[in-house]
Amino acid sequence: MKAVLVSAGVAPDRLVDLSHDLPAHGVEEAAFLLREMARGFPPDTVHVAVVDPGVGGRRRAVAVVTRAGPLLVGPDNGVLAPLAEELGLSAAFRIEATRLHRPNRIGTTFDGRDVFAPAAALLAQGWDPAELGPPVTPARYVLPSPERTPTGAVGEVLHVDRFGNLITNIPTRWVRAGVSRMTVRFATGSGRELPWVTSYEAIGRGSLGCLGSSFGLVELAVREGRASDRLRARVGSAVGLEWGRTPASTSANAKSARPRKRR
Amino acid sequence: MKAVLVSAGVAPDRLVDLSHDLPAHGVEEAAFLLREMARGFPPDTVHVAVVDPGVGGRRRAVAVVTRAGPLLVGPDNGVLAPLAEELGLSAAFRIEATRLHRPNRIGTTFDGRDVFAPAAALLAQGWDPAELGPPVTPARYVLPSPERTPTGAVGEVLHVDRFGNLITNIPTRWVRAGVSRMTVRFATGSGRELPWVTSYEAIGRGSLGCLGSSFGLVELAVREGRASDRLRARVGSAVGLEWGRTPASTSANAKSARPRKRR
Amino acid sequence: MKAVLVSAGVAPDRLVDLSHDLPAHGVEEAAFLLREMARGFPPDTVHVAVVDPGVGGRRRAVAVVTRAGPLLVGPDNGVLAPLAEELGLSAAFRIEATRLHRPNRIGTTFDGRDVFAPAAALLAQGWDPAELGPPVTPARYVLPSPERTPTGAVGEVLHVDRFGNLITNIPTRWVRAGVSRMTVRFATGSGRELPWVTSYEAIGRGSLGCLGSSFGLVELAVREGRASDRLRARVGSAVGLEWGRTPASTSANAKSARPRKRR
Repeated sequence: MKAVLVSAGVAPDRLVDLSHDLPAHGVEEAAFLLREMARGFPPDTVHVAVVDPGVGGRRRAVAVVTRAGPLLVGPDNGVLAPLAEELGLSAAFRIEATRLHRPNRIGTTFDGRDVFAPAAALLAQGWDPAELGPPVTPARYVLPSPERTPTGAVGEVLHVDRFGNLITNIPTRWVRAGVSRMTVRFATGSGRELPWVTSYEAIGRGSLGCLGSSFGLVELAVREGRASDRLRARVGSAVGLEWGRTPASTSANAKSARPRKRR
Repeated sequence: MKAVLVSAGVAPDRLVDLSHDLPAHGVEEAAFLLREMARGFPPDTVHVAVVDPGVGGRRRAVAVVTRAGPLLVGPDNGVLAPLAEELGLSAAFRIEATRLHRPNRIGTTFDGRDVFAPAAALLAQGWDPAELGPPVTPARYVLPSPERTPTGAVGEVLHVDRFGNLITNIPTRWVRAGVSRMTVRFATGSGRELPWVTSYEAIGRGSLGCLGSSFGLVELAVREGRASDRLRARVGSAVGLEWGRTPASTSANAKSARPRKRR
Repeated sequence: MKAVLVSAGVAPDRLVDLSHDLPAHGVEEAAFLLREMARGFPPDTVHVAVVDPGVGGRRRAVAVVTRAGPLLVGPDNGVLAPLAEELGLSAAFRIEATRLHRPNRIGTTFDGRDVFAPAAALLAQGWDPAELGPPVTPARYVLPSPERTPTGAVGEVLHVDRFGNLITNIPTRWVRAGVSRMTVRFATGSGRELPWVTSYEAIGRGSLGCLGSSFGLVELAVREGRASDRLRARVGSAVGLEWGRTPASTSANAKSARPRKRR
C-alpha cells in the first residue's frame, strides 16, 4: 500500500500509520477504534481502513465524504460508519476499479493495495470523489448502545486492548458520583464486587478493578495482568454494572442489571 | 537504524517502514516478500533488508546496483537476490565497514545499525556504490519454481501471512479456466478437494478454500481461521494441486501431482 | 498520540516511531532501551516515552532538559532516568495538565495522549519547558551494575530481545581476551560451559552460546532459537559468567561468581 501511495505521488511525509495490529476479521472493533484514533486529524485527511474479511465478494468499495472535511476510503462493511456518523455523512461513492487507471489486478484478496490505496492517492491529490464511481448509500453500522438500569447500566465489551483491558460501551460519566465499588456481571457467572478507581496503581497487583478508560468508557482491568483472560471476555461480551441507586431516585419495579445473553 | 539514518542526514520524511514483523531467521520468505513489497517504489529508492541470521560470520555485506535504478543494501545471504533479479542486476560491491567513517563497532550482531544503515545513508546522499568496497558477485538465490503436471501443478509454500493464509509459488494464471474445485495435496496426507473461489466470503466460515492471492499466486485459506494451523504447513512445505485435464489435452503417461518430499 | 501531535502543528515528517513493541509494564527494560535507541538523534529531538503502569496515580509527569540538548517527556517513574543521566540532567519540570490548553480529559489512563503528546508538541514548537510547570527533582533510576569477580563477572539480564536473546549488563570489554569458552550460571541451576563466539553462525544450530551484543554487553543466544525459553530467564534474572583468571592476576580469597539470589 505504501509503495502504491508513494509511486502515485503521495509524499512519505504525508503518511501516518495508525495501527497495523488490529485483530484479524474484527470489523466492529476496528470501526470503534478507527473513530477513536481518527479524532484530531485535520480536515484534509484521507483515512484509509482495511479490515476487510469480505474482500473479493459482494461488498462494495466506497469513498465517503464527510461534512467535517475528512474523506474515508475502505470496504463498505460498516468499518467506516461510526467515523462517518461522527464527522457527518455528506455523500458516498462506489469506487470502480476501472476508474483508477491501474494495471490489471493480479488477485482479488487485497483491495487495500489494489483499490483503496490508489483511490486514496487520487483523493489526496485533489480528485473529486464523484469521479471514482456512482453515488451510493453506504452500509450502516451503529456501535451497540448501553442502557441505564435503576442501579447501574448494561452494555458490552467494544475493545480488548493490547494489555488485555476490556473497554465497555458504558460511559464513565454515567457512574454515580462518589461510588467506590461496583458489581460487575457477565452473561454467565455471578457478579463480582470490584473497586472503582482512577488509576491501575489503586488496584492490588494482579487484582481486578474498574476505571474510566481513555475512551471515556468504563474499563475493566487487572493490574499488570490481562482482564480478558481472567474474565474470559472478548469483544461483544455482554456486561452489567451495578453501582447502586442514587439516594434521590427510587423505583419500585427496577430492571435487573443482568445483561441479556447475546446472540 | 533510524537514529543512524537521521543523524547521517537522511530526513525522516524519506524513510518508509515496509515491515518489522518478518519471521525471525526466514531468509527465503523475506527474499520473496522484499521483492513483492519493493515493487512500485521509485528508481531513486535505497532498499535496506536486515534478515540476517549469519551476522558477524562469513557472509559479506553488499550494495547492489540495479538496472531499473533502486540500490539494495543488506547481507549477501540471498535475501536481496530475487529483487535484484527482477530489477536487473547491474553491479554489486562488498561494503567494507572501514569505509563508512563510523565510530568503532561495539558488537558483531547488528549490522543493520552498524553497516547497512550507514551505507544506505551514504548512498541516499549520492555516494557512488563503488566507494563502499570492491566489486563482488552477489550470492544467488532463486525462489523455488513450480512445475506443471498434466492435471495441475506442484510447488511449495513461499509465505505464511499474518492471517495464516498459505501463499504457494503456483501462478494463479496456470489454473484452468472454469474450474470450481481442485484437489490439494501435501507431501504427507491424502488430498482434499477444495473450492476454487474469488473471495474468502465464498468459503464456508471456518472451512478451507483456494483462491488467487494478491501475489498472483494460488493461496490456501481458512475463512476467518488459520490455514497454516489447519494444514500444519509452513514455508517450504511442498504442495500439489490438481484441477483436472484441460479438455483439449490428453497425455497417456501423465506425471502424478503428488509433490516430492522436500529435503 | 499522532493525531494530537499532528493537530498541534507537528509535521508528520518530524515523527519517528522508535518502538511500539516494548513489553507491557516493563519500566526497567524500557529505560534501558530508550537510552540505547535514543543515541544518535540530533540535539533538537524531543523524546517521548510512554511505559507508564502508574498512570493516573501519584507519579508525576515530567519534562527533562538535558545538557546535550534533547528534551525528554514522560512519566516520572524512572523510564527517562538512564537517558537523562547519559545526556546530562540539566533541569526538570512537572507537567501540569492545566497548562496544556487541552480540552478536559476524558480518562486517567492514557497520559501519552492527554499529557505527554500535548507537552511534546509545545516543546517541539519552541515552548520553554519551565512554562509547563514548577521545577522538580526527577525520579532516579540507575540500571543495575555488574560486578567483576576474580574469575569473571556477575550481573543480570537487562533485556530480552524479540528473538529471545538475553542481553546482560556485563560489558563485552570485561571478557578476558583470548577466551573461547565461559561458564554461565543462573541463580538456580548449575553452570553450563558455553562457547564465546563472534557470530550466531559459530554456535551449533539450536545450541547455546555467548557473544558480544550490539549493546556492547554480553549476550546469551540460542542459534535460531530462543535463549529466554531454554534458560527460563527474563529481565532481572541474575547471571554469573566465569572465564577464568587472567594469567597475571591471582587472588587468595576470590569471590564466587555465583550470582546473588535476586529479590
